[in-house]
Amino acid sequence: MYSVGPPIERITSLQNPRVKQLVKLRDRRPRDEAGVFLVEGYREIRRALEKGVALQEIYFSPEWFLGENEPALIAQAQAAGAAACELAKDVFAKVAYRERPDGLLAVAPQWKRALSDLDHLFGKDGDRPAVGLTGKAPFLLVVEAIEKPGNLGTILRSADAAGCDAVIVCDPVTDIFNPNVVRASTGVLFSVPLVVEESTRVQAWLLEKGVRMVATTPGAEKVYSDVDLRGPLAVVMGSEQYGLSKFWLANCDVPVRIPMAGQADSLNVAMATIITLFEAVRQRSGKS
Amino acid sequence: MYSVGPPIERITSLQNPRVKQLVKLRDRRPRDEAGVFLVEGYREIRRALEKGVALQEIYFSPEWFLGENEPALIAQAQAAGAAACELAKDVFAKVAYRERPDGLLAVAPQWKRALSDLDHLFGKDGDRPAVGLTGKAPFLLVVEAIEKPGNLGTILRSADAAGCDAVIVCDPVTDIFNPNVVRASTGVLFSVPLVVEESTRVQAWLLEKGVRMVATTPGAEKVYSDVDLRGPLAVVMGSEQYGLSKFWLANCDVPVRIPMAGQADSLNVAMATIITLFEAVRQRSGKS
Repeated sequence: MYSVGPPIERITSLQNPRVKQLVKLRDRRPRDEAGVFLVEGYREIRRALEKGVALQEIYFSPEWFLGENEPALIAQAQAAGAAACELAKDVFAKVAYRERPDGLLAVAPQWKRALSDLDHLFGKDGDRPAVGLTGKAPFLLVVEAIEKPGNLGTILRSADAAGCDAVIVCDPVTDIFNPNVVRASTGVLFSVPLVVEESTRVQAWLLEKGVRMVATTPGAEKVYSDVDLRGPLAVVMGSEQYGLSKFWLANCDVPVRIPMAGQADSLNVAMATIITLFEAVRQRSGKS
Repeated sequence: MYSVGPPIERITSLQNPRVKQLVKLRDRRPRDEAGVFLVEGYREIRRALEKGVALQEIYFSPEWFLGENEPALIAQAQAAGAAACELAKDVFAKVAYRERPDGLLAVAPQWKRALSDLDHLFGKDGDRPAVGLTGKAPFLLVVEAIEKPGNLGTILRSADAAGCDAVIVCDPVTDIFNPNVVRASTGVLFSVPLVVEESTRVQAWLLEKGVRMVATTPGAEKVYSDVDLRGPLAVVMGSEQYGLSKFWLANCDVPVRIPMAGQADSLNVAMATIITLFEAVRQRSGKS
């Protein structure tokens, strides 16, 4: 077991202003004002560190630890520049947003990526390295106005598993730095490049780059698996409640549907996303 | 708007024994002793009624209603034999297990289906009606020792959407009548035939019936989409924590894997299930 390093502040009062600030960071406005967000949990913090995220602060409470690797992780965060702070058990319970806290909570800086940050995906043929399972052609996921943080997190996991080059979140209702997005993404938020942008700009950019936009909507004529999903591709998914907007319906290249038996609402947006992405993976693997 | 029908009991005391019993039904032992389970929420109760489930009791609390159709649903439940009972607002808050109750909670009888109840799926060729999207050959989902009620519910939704003829739950860790299974399944629990049975019996039965057992496991050589998923098929999924058991690994026909980019744990069992089921749907639709 590592020692935790330099002398560490310890907070035992529920009234401590830093404790109050941590609780406030669950809400978007204070998050945006401070330009930071919360990362709770061993796995999520480890992934943030692995991806080089410069955590500002790491809070811990040994009485909540579930394993033996927590001190090493704290030391690693400190070595990467994070200020460590120990919290009394009840103080940690107050700042934790999980039902079963594991005694680790970090504060990370927000970031902002623009569409232009994805330009490297569009080098000359062969310029760019092969990505994951899907060969060299850019493979993007566009999600529109997703409302539930849990769905956005699950969608990020799916995009990660499918080897998407990036996820573009249009007109977001959910803040990508919502604690439940971080949690539901199991930290994938730190590894999948994520751009937030308006739909009209995204569509114009995809058009300019020659990316085929395939959008899923229940009313489409074509079945998703009957459509060619190889080459530069953006899979476009609508919101939970309203589905795909008129804008994307009118401005995508191919609307497709997923055939469904059973109850009309058995597939939610996260499930429809993973079905479509993995059909693209299958086609792009070049085996059929 | 319907009137609610016969005179209705009203409970205003948190100490009422029926209130205490409703709270107890969240736990498995009291559920099994009483042979009943809880169905909370408009959509779930509606689906139970649609499927002819003989609800025993329906509890309601108008102050929690979200829409205008609740009285009609209560009348429908009464017409089908359920005793209706009004609860004061705080009493309903106590018996509800959802974060956002909608003022409706029913008590339904548990049921038990055996493998033999699925025998109709194996008539002579052409004997049985075509089912959903997948033609005439039986299409089954077998899940082993799923731990999280939410995952089991999501898996039931996937099976419903894919048109599976039945779901077989082996060696369950989670009770299929857990309130969170009902909730996560959005009531699909009432429409997808569900059998609970030991793995060894299930495997022997599938073997006898000539059903091909395709089991997903990360270590498999073959990729799921390279395997023929047409004909009588059982897709077999392992548990969240331990994956497929040695028994199923040794006794399935074909182990398959889902190719994955990204983090090793980006696909959970519910996501892996839907990917595999919809590849089967694709192949069984006969278009490729």
